[in-house]
Amino acid sequence: MIIVLKPKTKKEEIDEVVDKIKKRGLKPTTFEGVERTVIHVLGEVKEDDANSMKSVSCVEKVVRIMKPYKLASKEHHAQQTVVKAGDVSFGNSDFTIIAGPCSAESEKQVMESAKLLKEIGIRVMRASVFKPRTSPYSFQGMGIEGLKLLKKVRDETGLLVETEVMDVRDVPIAAEYVDIVRVGARNMQNFDLLKEVGKINKPVILKRGMAATIKEFLMAAEYILMNGNKNVILCERGIRTFETAYRNTLDLAAVAILKKETHLPVIVDPSHAAGRRDLVNSLSKASAAVGADGLLVEMHPNPEEASSDGDQSLYPEQLADLLKELKPICEAVGKRIVENGANKG
Amino acid sequence: MIIVLKPKTKKEEIDEVVDKIKKRGLKPTTFEGVERTVIHVLGEVKEDDANSMKSVSCVEKVVRIMKPYKLASKEHHAQQTVVKAGDVSFGNSDFTIIAGPCSAESEKQVMESAKLLKEIGIRVMRASVFKPRTSPYSFQGMGIEGLKLLKKVRDETGLLVETEVMDVRDVPIAAEYVDIVRVGARNMQNFDLLKEVGKINKPVILKRGMAATIKEFLMAAEYILMNGNKNVILCERGIRTFETAYRNTLDLAAVAILKKETHLPVIVDPSHAAGRRDLVNSLSKASAAVGADGLLVEMHPNPEEASSDGDQSLYPEQLADLLKELKPICEAVGKRIVENGANKG
Amino acid sequence: MIIVLKPKTKKEEIDEVVDKIKKRGLKPTTFEGVERTVIHVLGEVKEDDANSMKSVSCVEKVVRIMKPYKLASKEHHAQQTVVKAGDVSFGNSDFTIIAGPCSAESEKQVMESAKLLKEIGIRVMRASVFKPRTSPYSFQGMGIEGLKLLKKVRDETGLLVETEVMDVRDVPIAAEYVDIVRVGARNMQNFDLLKEVGKINKPVILKRGMAATIKEFLMAAEYILMNGNKNVILCERGIRTFETAYRNTLDLAAVAILKKETHLPVIVDPSHAAGRRDLVNSLSKASAAVGADGLLVEMHPNPEEASSDGDQSLYPEQLADLLKELKPICEAVGKRIVENGANKG
Amino acid sequence: MIIVLKPKTKKEEIDEVVDKIKKRGLKPTTFEGVERTVIHVLGEVKEDDANSMKSVSCVEKVVRIMKPYKLASKEHHAQQTVVKAGDVSFGNSDFTIIAGPCSAESEKQVMESAKLLKEIGIRVMRASVFKPRTSPYSFQGMGIEGLKLLKKVRDETGLLVETEVMDVRDVPIAAEYVDIVRVGARNMQNFDLLKEVGKINKPVILKRGMAATIKEFLMAAEYILMNGNKNVILCERGIRTFETAYRNTLDLAAVAILKKETHLPVIVDPSHAAGRRDLVNSLSKASAAVGADGLLVEMHPNPEEASSDGDQSLYPEQLADLLKELKPICEAVGKRIVENGANKG
Repeated sequence: MIIVLKPKTKKEEIDEVVDKIKKRGLKPTTFEGVERTVIHVLGEVKEDDANSMKSVSCVEKVVRIMKPYKLASKEHHAQQTVVKAGDVSFGNSDFTIIAGPCSAESEKQVMESAKLLKEIGIRVMRASVFKPRTSPYSFQGMGIEGLKLLKKVRDETGLLVETEVMDVRDVPIAAEYVDIVRVGARNMQNFDLLKEVGKINKPVILKRGMAATIKEFLMAAEYILMNGNKNVILCERGIRTFETAYRNTLDLAAVAILKKETHLPVIVDPSHAAGRRDLVNSLSKASAAVGADGLLVEMHPNPEEASSDGDQSLYPEQLADLLKELKPICEAVGKRIVENGANKG
Repeated sequence: MIIVLKPKTKKEEIDEVVDKIKKRGLKPTTFEGVERTVIHVLGEVKEDDANSMKSVSCVEKVVRIMKPYKLASKEHHAQQTVVKAGDVSFGNSDFTIIAGPCSAESEKQVMESAKLLKEIGIRVMRASVFKPRTSPYSFQGMGIEGLKLLKKVRDETGLLVETEVMDVRDVPIAAEYVDIVRVGARNMQNFDLLKEVGKINKPVILKRGMAATIKEFLMAAEYILMNGNKNVILCERGIRTFETAYRNTLDLAAVAILKKETHLPVIVDPSHAAGRRDLVNSLSKASAAVGADGLLVEMHPNPEEASSDGDQSLYPEQLADLLKELKPICEAVGKRIVENGANKG
Repeated sequence: MIIVLKPKTKKEEIDEVVDKIKKRGLKPTTFEGVERTVIHVLGEVKEDDANSMKSVSCVEKVVRIMKPYKLASKEHHAQQTVVKAGDVSFGNSDFTIIAGPCSAESEKQVMESAKLLKEIGIRVMRASVFKPRTSPYSFQGMGIEGLKLLKKVRDETGLLVETEVMDVRDVPIAAEYVDIVRVGARNMQNFDLLKEVGKINKPVILKRGMAATIKEFLMAAEYILMNGNKNVILCERGIRTFETAYRNTLDLAAVAILKKETHLPVIVDPSHAAGRRDLVNSLSKASAAVGADGLLVEMHPNPEEASSDGDQSLYPEQLADLLKELKPICEAVGKRIVENGANKG
Repeated sequence: MIIVLKPKTKKEEIDEVVDKIKKRGLKPTTFEGVERTVIHVLGEVKEDDANSMKSVSCVEKVVRIMKPYKLASKEHHAQQTVVKAGDVSFGNSDFTIIAGPCSAESEKQVMESAKLLKEIGIRVMRASVFKPRTSPYSFQGMGIEGLKLLKKVRDETGLLVETEVMDVRDVPIAAEYVDIVRVGARNMQNFDLLKEVGKINKPVILKRGMAATIKEFLMAAEYILMNGNKNVILCERGIRTFETAYRNTLDLAAVAILKKETHLPVIVDPSHAAGRRDLVNSLSKASAAVGADGLLVEMHPNPEEASSDGDQSLYPEQLADLLKELKPICEAVGKRIVENGANKG
């Protein structure tokens, strides 16, 4: 940690700061510049230490040298994490696509989606049963009933299933019914939820909050890792900016940075970023090219009848086309799309 | 709702859209323009209806005419809501200040804070016991122990007490111990939490999410109102922008708009917006001038020793000065600061 | 400047960086931490020096200690600058209001505006004659003809006049005709224009760019100051964020920071920030309360017929009301509104 | 245009609005809804018409149906524009890469850069001679001297040359010396400059302003097109957001949208978006995958000695590698990289 003092700070004030640092078990070295005194601090500096220093009146700026996340960091854990669910992997040379409807709406819609996904070659089906809706007047999801349908999908088709959890009280039951659990963007800093999914033994997809910095995103992952669950998959899904031509600004540079900063796998959700079906194909290709480990993409058997997000859901044939177009791009960056039995052979 | 179709949409496609609208129990009127056909839709249009229309391929744009929030809207509920807690009010001519430390840290710190607040003339004390911390390595709060201390404050000093809830499981107990419950910015769209605080009979302060639009803020309030709790106080606390000279950009225009749009009281948290003590005084005055109903402001008996947010906490004497300086501004806009017994007479 | 090296940087690489620093005439001191080496650099560090260091492969981060602006900084020039134009001042205890139509549209409209402003008690009239319009199909301004009308206003009413310059070639003639020259938000980093207005001897209002940080804003002022014109007035006018309920997010915390950082006067344009007439009154009051030195506000004799920005222009009677309501707030913060002869006595 | 009136607007007010619309030569049709009256307006609606309607007190919202840009729009000009400079093209199946140093610094550096670029297979060299620098204390460019060096590059190597113009007075001379002229992000709404480059007969690269919406970007292009220059190449280079891990947020969804909205070619500048060398490779690949027509990328023979932007400039060997890695991705999306003679065969 480096502490920059305000110009004209008096000797007594400097001594006081130095004392405070020592009391926290850290080692200060003072360094007098032309206009400002700078104190270099050695030791295991915590966020709270940094904040405490910032609150001293004669302090102008505090700069942390060490990264605030450890478990999520490549610096402290060099080996790439490969998250496995059933026979699919995230973080190795596979490019894994999770696809399906925004919400589970009915047995018919869920089973039809599953059948279509299997035909297309998808191996993991997404479908939310607990829905975070901006409006209390919108469809709120099927709840436990939906979880049972997802189990049925797995039993009958062999597809893996993935769903979102929102309420800490739903985590254990969701973890029982599905293969992969998702924490949505709005809950990225719902710390109680992060702790709860940190205690289960299923992989967790953590979506980036729409106003979260990359650093905060990794700190949220750190909460899950620290609570014992090492199977975290990060998911970039767009950030909020001034542009209104689409839903959120897909931040592919964040994917490139995450691949350097962390050993955790990184996937992209182009559907929620775009908010419009016609951009999903090109954003998916860009995601593969930038180095992502997979996609989370919305497809609906009949988007115009969807209870939610129909405008951003691909038609089944569009998803099939996307898969074909993705292949050469994945190959160009050393990845490959593993499809399910239906068209593997 | 107005539906703008893409140029060159065929007659059959238009007919199909018209049918869809009718099936949803709404009344369409088609309107052919120079380049585009526009369909005007009458009836009780829901968010889901609008989304469904957006997902049709020949639709270019959907514009909603009616506001998506009802209970929170002045249009549907013209009378100003006055939220009362003990003998303080939010939303009438009072300018009510809630102040205190970011976190409850110890009995000594809590009781000392309460004593200082009382001397200064503050009537409601804030102190978080469940802490949303970006880093899992930071101080996480005193929990239930802290709630008991807040009760002690009320019993011994007569101050009202306010705290944050984060976990749905903590809502009932928090509601039992404190006078006002707060939902933090990071949880503004934690819909399960909103539903839960909608079921208690204590006033709720709802803080604006740092990437939330004013419309989304009101929709979040709608969740609470719809679940039965009419005592919602909105709190502007800064939004996330590109500027890094402070913590968040305090959006006082949002306060001005909220005062026009909603009958709910609106307060401002200048401390979290600023993130630095030296801006709190002037931002507080600006908040009063723009028409806010009160403030939520951090004060710590000894900011340099605070476990969290020390850098943005006022020293006790700074809070006392602020109160004095606020008075003529409150008066200029038709408000007055009611102080507690200590210095009332 | 502080240079943080990447973990595991080799001794030879460190030596190379140290050499580079010395070649630039600066003094490095190396400081080995647990994981990273940090180099403190003493001397007159320029932006180019910092950039050059950042481009070295083993460098992780460069932190500048000294502020990049000097002439604009209170640190290097403690005394508050008072900018005078005719008999009005910016930066002392006066709260000075510049008001008038967005654009000069016709002799009738200009003269009528001037008459109304004078009656209300305003002493400086604004009116753009060169118009920065997003669309090439919009009204582009009256040009030189408009400048002549502004001169006529001054000759006939005694009001001071202010207008915007956009094209470097128009600066000398504008400076001849008006009392105060304005650089608009879109041109805040039009460096050739900044240099040009730095050479005239009329006060310059520099508006903050809608994506400019406070630091960049002060650097833009530095360009003008460095070219010889010391009479710079900074104007906050809202920044671009995700919120769409108004035009731009008025950043009053920036005003509070600027008043601490720089000796230059700071005014606020609530009209362009709001983009809607109904917010101008309350944002103006908040601007006075936060400590601004004045306002730049749009008024039109007949807003509904305005060629531009009619929706954000006050009606004359609204401006008169605003003046009355501002008085007690200005007084509360130690300022006063000096009005013109018409209603001074 | 659709005009939504406020609830409870009186009949006389509606009549007044209808009259206003008719006076502007447009045709209104009134439509009474449950809570609000909506007026559909037919005819050639201009931005000024829309603004004028917004300024009427009883108007709640104005929605434009027609796009405000025409010449830039695919809707009005379906055929893809192919911009040619010498033997390179933008907008057809070629993927064209412009590369070179941020600034021309010296004869040695310029000629060495050119030689390296030619060896690598690049056909257009970039180098700025007029520099927009945030700080007045930074290197301001070589000026006319630099233009002469660029001419020398063309004469001696056969490379095409590209440079930025900032000052309207420099446009004619720059157009004389270089093959392609660039308008930088900070000048995207410098309307006088846009008009000036609209009058030359050289292709113009227009970079997106860092706070410009896609719509505003196209309106800026419209200014150039309207003044007669049809050879406009749009360049996405990142927008300003809250994220600070890189310089700006590269908005590849904007590229996807632009390819749908406009017939103009679209290229990407990954260097300025990233602001750091280590992201340029992956962002370039993502740009190709998303459908861009080319790149504008910084390379410096010796980045650590660069006068500007060294930290984001590729080393020559990195650019050579990038070219190789781009090829299969370009092919996957139906594009190909045409290289110069040196390595064509």
